[in-house]
Amino acid sequence: MSADRDDVPPMPPGDQFVQSLARGLEVIRAFDAQHHELSLSDVARRTGLTRATARRFLLTLVGLGYVRTDGRLFRLTPQILRLGHAYLSSMGLTDIAQPHLEALSAQLGESTSASVLDGAEIVYVARVATRRLMMVGISVGTRFPAYATSMGRVLLAAQPPTALPEILDQLNPTALTARTLTDRAALLREIDRVRRQGYAVVDQELEMGLRSVAAPVRGASGDVVAAVNVSMSALRTPAPTPGGPLLEGLLGAAAAISADLRTAGRGAEPAAP
Amino acid sequence: MSADRDDVPPMPPGDQFVQSLARGLEVIRAFDAQHHELSLSDVARRTGLTRATARRFLLTLVGLGYVRTDGRLFRLTPQILRLGHAYLSSMGLTDIAQPHLEALSAQLGESTSASVLDGAEIVYVARVATRRLMMVGISVGTRFPAYATSMGRVLLAAQPPTALPEILDQLNPTALTARTLTDRAALLREIDRVRRQGYAVVDQELEMGLRSVAAPVRGASGDVVAAVNVSMSALRTPAPTPGGPLLEGLLGAAAAISADLRTAGRGAEPAAP
Repeated sequence: MSADRDDVPPMPPGDQFVQSLARGLEVIRAFDAQHHELSLSDVARRTGLTRATARRFLLTLVGLGYVRTDGRLFRLTPQILRLGHAYLSSMGLTDIAQPHLEALSAQLGESTSASVLDGAEIVYVARVATRRLMMVGISVGTRFPAYATSMGRVLLAAQPPTALPEILDQLNPTALTARTLTDRAALLREIDRVRRQGYAVVDQELEMGLRSVAAPVRGASGDVVAAVNVSMSALRTPAPTPGGPLLEGLLGAAAAISADLRTAGRGAEPAAP
Repeated sequence: MSADRDDVPPMPPGDQFVQSLARGLEVIRAFDAQHHELSLSDVARRTGLTRATARRFLLTLVGLGYVRTDGRLFRLTPQILRLGHAYLSSMGLTDIAQPHLEALSAQLGESTSASVLDGAEIVYVARVATRRLMMVGISVGTRFPAYATSMGRVLLAAQPPTALPEILDQLNPTALTARTLTDRAALLREIDRVRRQGYAVVDQELEMGLRSVAAPVRGASGDVVAAVNVSMSALRTPAPTPGGPLLEGLLGAAAAISADLRTAGRGAEPAAP
């Protein structure tokens, strides 16, 4: 952040921070798969707010249409998706990637996805699932640890080498299968190899039986802003080979999405952690 | 809302409403496809806040990780998807529907989706796109007017008949193609027919060349909570017939999703507007 562009100085501590906004977003995030209907007491307990405060936030969210209540229990409404959709449409990547992912998926008969890096995790921003895979239930917004996924390794390979040690500290790799690379030096070597070869193959490190191949997508600025992948059965499908249809199709789709982003002047944001 | 369950009385006007939360959510929604990078002045103008207030909200969102800035321009981060994902995972519908939609899509070779009603619009909560369709770029969170879509008609047909006139007032149907039903009486008749026959066919009313067939999904309470559809080329594919593979497959998938929701005790929320 250079001083001459800095018309927004760093936030001063204290009264500048809008505590109510932070609390309100915490109330929204109190709802999840295991907690889809919450009472006032539930929300107070899960957020650490007093009942009176939780009530004000919940009723404000009801008033705004983001939460619905039967008078006793609260739940989120589809209105909440407008917030996530604001991100997806503002990025432009989902709309631009989707037709290319659909064509690639039809061509290969395999599932395809796009994701971005958020700290030490990848977040799905588009997905085309062509058949009942082992990994069902992946949707836009789903997160996985970056170190054990092909898209994650592609996104990590695009980070400045000086930033990698800190990111790896956040990752804290643990073995998700017997094959997961967890050794820090081995991971760094693999990320370096991905950077040089321009794609990543991850074979059964996230889930047994699942293989995934990923390639980087560049935004208008030329920086890597996302990754696209093809995922398949490790048992059914032969390993990808340079010049083979899978790798050529994937690299072609990544290049086509990058070209569309360049044309649209979008995806200028580097996939920084 | 019966009085005896009402341990959360209606919100009193004035100081109970958390204005800061409402404003903060407006700041998030100031970003969209046409406004993916905003300066402080842009945000102030788009939200009607003063620059000083907009700045506090933006810097709070930066501090929370929902917004990123280079010091001058602001943009949303993937962290925002956690808010939308809270809804999708709290509903359970996306996870439960996805494998059924994938199987149906593979069986028919057509795209499949699930959506819920939000006021006068349907909102996609799951989608499986198998090929390059006319309607690309549909993703979770995409909205369409309910009156011109098969899923919308199924969801409208599940509303209490007394609620329909008010919803139709919100709809304000306009012709999206030469075939769009816009006459209020004709729409009510069609919605009535959909209720009786248990599915809806919409032929080129949303977009020329596109046909869609939808069926209702019931939650644990037995209420209709969502709709699933199959969309296809109106030119390439013959119209669906009772007992034919398309309609049988769709109704089977809707029944299977309903059964899974019942087993999971989920989707208890009626698809109320």
